[in-house]
Amino acid sequence: MAVDCIIFGFDGVDYKLLMVNRGFSPEKEKWSLMGGFLRTSESLDESANRILNELTGLENVFMEQMHTFSKPNRDPVERVVGVVYMALIDIKKYQHQSNDDFQARWFQIDQLPKLIFDHQEMVEMAFSRLKSKAAFHPILFELLPEKFTLPKLQALYEKLFATKIDKRNFTRKLLSSKIIQKIGEKDKTASKKGAFYYTLNPSNYKENFQRTLNLIPKSEIPSLME
Amino acid sequence: MAVDCIIFGFDGVDYKLLMVNRGFSPEKEKWSLMGGFLRTSESLDESANRILNELTGLENVFMEQMHTFSKPNRDPVERVVGVVYMALIDIKKYQHQSNDDFQARWFQIDQLPKLIFDHQEMVEMAFSRLKSKAAFHPILFELLPEKFTLPKLQALYEKLFATKIDKRNFTRKLLSSKIIQKIGEKDKTASKKGAFYYTLNPSNYKENFQRTLNLIPKSEIPSLME
Repeated sequence: MAVDCIIFGFDGVDYKLLMVNRGFSPEKEKWSLMGGFLRTSESLDESANRILNELTGLENVFMEQMHTFSKPNRDPVERVVGVVYMALIDIKKYQHQSNDDFQARWFQIDQLPKLIFDHQEMVEMAFSRLKSKAAFHPILFELLPEKFTLPKLQALYEKLFATKIDKRNFTRKLLSSKIIQKIGEKDKTASKKGAFYYTLNPSNYKENFQRTLNLIPKSEIPSLME
Repeated sequence: MAVDCIIFGFDGVDYKLLMVNRGFSPEKEKWSLMGGFLRTSESLDESANRILNELTGLENVFMEQMHTFSKPNRDPVERVVGVVYMALIDIKKYQHQSNDDFQARWFQIDQLPKLIFDHQEMVEMAFSRLKSKAAFHPILFELLPEKFTLPKLQALYEKLFATKIDKRNFTRKLLSSKIIQKIGEKDKTASKKGAFYYTLNPSNYKENFQRTLNLIPKSEIPSLME
C-alpha cells in the first residue's frame, strides 16, 4: 500500500506542486508525486507525515487524507492501492531545504509534466478539492508566510478561482472575520506607499477555521461533491 | 484490505444506519458495519458496490468513498486497512429485500449498539460529512422515495441539523431552485387537506447537484474540515 503526497505551494503569483523525478524503476526518470510505502507500525497519517518529512524536512504541515485510488492495473508491475494526502505549505519554508538527493521540483499547476500512473487524476481531484474547501474555509492561509499583505492574500484567492474579486468586499469580510490582524510594518517592494503586513490572529483563526467564510462570489464556487 | 459501508436511511422521522450482526470470529455476534474484503480484480468502488449488493440486493445506489482507516491495531487479529464508503438509500426499497441470511438491522443513529473495532469512529465521521455536504448540496434527496411531500423533505433537513427551519423560506428556496416539481397527487395520510407530492426534476436535479443550495441557516452549518 502506497502513500502519495500532493504538495501545494503558492509563490505569490502561481499555484505550484512539488514533484519528484523517480530514481528507480518502473517509470525511472519520470515525474511523480512524492510517495512511499505504508509501514507495518504506522497509520496512514503517520506514514504521510514521515514521507513528507523525509523528502522536504518539513514538520507540522497542514495535511489531510484525500482519497484512496485502487484501479487494479494502476501500477503496471504489481497491484498497489494508493492513498493520497494533500499538503499545503509555505513555499519559502521549503526553499530553505536541500533537495539535491531526490530531485524534487516545483511545477506550475497548469504546466505539469506528464506524470506516472494515475497521478494526473490525483492532482486534478486535489485541485478541485482545494477549491471546494477554500470556497468556504480559510484553508489557503496555510500557503502564506507568517506575514503577508492584503493584495497578496487577494491574489491567492483570485488565482485559485480564476476570477477577479471586489477588493473592498474582500477586505471588509476578511477584517470583520477577525481571522487576521494588522502588524505595524509595511511591505514596500510592490509600491512606494507600501502595503501593511498582516498576520493570522491565532485564537480567531483556529476558531474561524471551523466556520464558513464567504470570500468568493457564489457563482464561482465549484462543486463540493467532486 | 477491507471495505466497510455506512448505509444511511430515513424513515420519515429518524436517520437510521443499517448494521449487521457478525456471524464469524473475531467479535462474533457483535454489531458492525457491512463489510468485506477487496478482491484482486476489483477497484474499491467496485468492491463497495458488490458488498452493498450482496447484502441488500440494491444497485445504482448513491455511494462515495469517505475515508481510509489505518491504525495498526484497529483489528486485533491482523493488520487490516479499512476503506469506508457512505451510501444513501431509500429505506423502503431496502425493506423489500430479504435480510435473513446476514441478520441486518436498522438502528436509529442516536441509538446505535456498541460497534466493533473503530466502526463507531467511522460512523461519527460519516454523520459529520453528511451534514457538511447536505448543508450545501441537495444530497439528502437520495434518502427519499420517488415521490415525497414538502413537510417530509423539511423533516429530513430539520432532523439532520437538529434545528427548526422557517417553512416559507425553505419552500421558496427549494421551489426556485427548480430541483423538484409538483405532481398532481396528494398524500392524505397526515392531514385531511393533504400535502402535494413532489418528485425530483431529473434535468435540474443533476445540474443543481453541483451547485450550492442554502437551505440551512449559516449558523447551523457544521465544519467542512472534519
